[in-house]
Amino acid sequence: MSLANHKVAEILTVGTEILLGNIVNANAAFLSRELAALGVAVFRHTSVGDNPDRLAAAFSDAFETADIVVTTGGLGPTQDDITKHVAAKFFGLETEIHEESRRRIEVRFADRELPENVERNAIVPCGARVFQNDNGAAPGICIERDGKILIMLPGPPHEMQPMFLDYAAAFLKSGRVFLSRTLKLIGRGETSVESALRDLIDAQTNPTIAPYAKVGEVHVRVTASADGETAATALLSPTCDEIYSRLGTHIYAENDVTLAEVVVCALKKNNFTLALAESCTGGMIAAQIVDVPGCSAVFNEGFVTYSNEAKISRLGVCKKILAEHGAVSAQVAAAMAEGVARTAGASVGLSVTGIAGPDGGTAEKPVGLVYIGLHINGNTQIEKHNLSANRSVVRKRTAVFALDFLRRHL
Amino acid sequence: MSLANHKVAEILTVGTEILLGNIVNANAAFLSRELAALGVAVFRHTSVGDNPDRLAAAFSDAFETADIVVTTGGLGPTQDDITKHVAAKFFGLETEIHEESRRRIEVRFADRELPENVERNAIVPCGARVFQNDNGAAPGICIERDGKILIMLPGPPHEMQPMFLDYAAAFLKSGRVFLSRTLKLIGRGETSVESALRDLIDAQTNPTIAPYAKVGEVHVRVTASADGETAATALLSPTCDEIYSRLGTHIYAENDVTLAEVVVCALKKNNFTLALAESCTGGMIAAQIVDVPGCSAVFNEGFVTYSNEAKISRLGVCKKILAEHGAVSAQVAAAMAEGVARTAGASVGLSVTGIAGPDGGTAEKPVGLVYIGLHINGNTQIEKHNLSANRSVVRKRTAVFALDFLRRHL
Repeated sequence: MSLANHKVAEILTVGTEILLGNIVNANAAFLSRELAALGVAVFRHTSVGDNPDRLAAAFSDAFETADIVVTTGGLGPTQDDITKHVAAKFFGLETEIHEESRRRIEVRFADRELPENVERNAIVPCGARVFQNDNGAAPGICIERDGKILIMLPGPPHEMQPMFLDYAAAFLKSGRVFLSRTLKLIGRGETSVESALRDLIDAQTNPTIAPYAKVGEVHVRVTASADGETAATALLSPTCDEIYSRLGTHIYAENDVTLAEVVVCALKKNNFTLALAESCTGGMIAAQIVDVPGCSAVFNEGFVTYSNEAKISRLGVCKKILAEHGAVSAQVAAAMAEGVARTAGASVGLSVTGIAGPDGGTAEKPVGLVYIGLHINGNTQIEKHNLSANRSVVRKRTAVFALDFLRRHL
Repeated sequence: MSLANHKVAEILTVGTEILLGNIVNANAAFLSRELAALGVAVFRHTSVGDNPDRLAAAFSDAFETADIVVTTGGLGPTQDDITKHVAAKFFGLETEIHEESRRRIEVRFADRELPENVERNAIVPCGARVFQNDNGAAPGICIERDGKILIMLPGPPHEMQPMFLDYAAAFLKSGRVFLSRTLKLIGRGETSVESALRDLIDAQTNPTIAPYAKVGEVHVRVTASADGETAATALLSPTCDEIYSRLGTHIYAENDVTLAEVVVCALKKNNFTLALAESCTGGMIAAQIVDVPGCSAVFNEGFVTYSNEAKISRLGVCKKILAEHGAVSAQVAAAMAEGVARTAGASVGLSVTGIAGPDGGTAEKPVGLVYIGLHINGNTQIEKHNLSANRSVVRKRTAVFALDFLRRHL
């Protein structure tokens, strides 16, 4: 099959929890972006509850206009999981146990007792294409009938997203090649990035250019389509080069490479070792470093010194400095960075101290005030931020900015 | 008016940026929650782009079933803002400038030059009810025809949310109340929870019962509707009590309370202090504890001892134990928990050591093997898990299981 005749899609998210407002429908946004990158125009999102009649009506409505319908949710083993059963009925198909999926589930539960009904995960409409689930039990299902395509994906994002990227997208783009490069930036807001690229965005045809705001970051995705990978790559290069020439100092990586991976890689190259001293981020920076396989080569250890006592006993921060300047100060950030490098015998010490809120802010030191300390090559440098957001976002952005501060000095 | 005859609603969000996946549709989730609280059942969400024909079709589809349709987006002054114009045409109404809204806009722009077209914000269908916008220019609009209600709200959440709460909700209010309790469980899978509640789920009418799978957890939401809050609460209690009697040991909290909050609260009650020693989770547990405001009362400090050297120097784990049993072993988990409590002078030490993958697994110690150590009241206990998932999910589930292990001993 080719995408040539399948240009219009609807995203149909299934689950009463969506209609109750229990969860925000992030699946629809994810799939919209990914389908756009494949050249598929999404003309409508619909969400319905776990109700067979309404879901059947939604299938019927969707296929009136759409060539491709992508669903999420309702593939599991419970009574509420109705999507594949309603779809089978809609297309007049019987269902059967998909043996390969059943075996995958057995392997998954090899060391535990197989719960009742778990086999129902492996039920699929007869003759359907099956996408394996590398992060859960229920496989994805694809039905093709009369030029229409129905793709059913699981609801949990950590199962749905890799399944779409690894299997469903590959199925949809056979024939035509869609190639994307995502340039990842820190230190410029979305509006500022968009202004810098205004003329390119306005003139876009192939490749297309789309900026996305992330917590503390902006991602610019450039997508080209062509008959082959070489041609698509050639289309991408001049546009990406132009973006680099305008915003290169802010671009830390491309595609799936994380900021922590860039940092770990640069530390390795320099034969540096890293120690972390975290106050308000409370271990978030260490957790991102540890997310990189093989980080042990450069990561000595991390300290979550949320209390003043820990800052003193673990990092050797002077009581006097704490008393004079307060725990959230440039002086303490510097002492923490120096102290953690010394304690851990690391060549690089990175520290964070800040007021994440909701309490603890003053007129002089408001919630969102954050100091980052970096001790490297015998020098200590400090970066100050005033972030206006809630506790969770202040902490997440601080972790990003701290890792980027380190990256820029490697 | 009363909601007595207006039980079913559709939320219709308008904007091409939603279909491109540029923004996540948080408006639909907000309105769903608020409408449920007003006793209005939302049966569908639909999102369409800034396209008059598709929007008109969406109105037509929605009012086939819905008594109330709530839209967001498309009320502004630009060519893309089509919602109120399409609605006027749909109901066969002329439009006019709403004088009070126009004056509000003039006041709003009193100290600035009035931009071109800004008056178009004040255009409304003739005879419509108008909701003033206290946080922006475009007012909300409500049309009632033949027992159907159309409520149009602006797209930006900071304008839409207060307008709904302050004006639209007051207009819709009725005596009917929907009340939910979400029971949050750890230690049983979704299928196992559903089996345990099979008879209750099969017999459900009011309240309804719905289990949802989360990473390492299952949430069971119980929802009742009644004429008042007291009656709804009374309907909820027996069902929740029954679920507690069957699965109570696995239920750690209800509604928005997080596992880390339960743990911090229990530590406070017991006058305990906590120290953490994390290997494969690399700071994730500490980060969750620090997410709780006021955690400093019970959280001494955390150590990210990813390397053997750090386990030895920071936690006093014996070289011999590491050599004999390996870093991922019950013995090392125990030594880490005891060591971190001793080092930090804390009454409780919690430790984690495991193989998160993708490399490092052996036949004897596969990826996903995790030991959790807990030193409390002078005793040390160990819990072993075999998790089958990718690096990220293994680490997330380990963090959940470790906090729950601690919770069950408090």
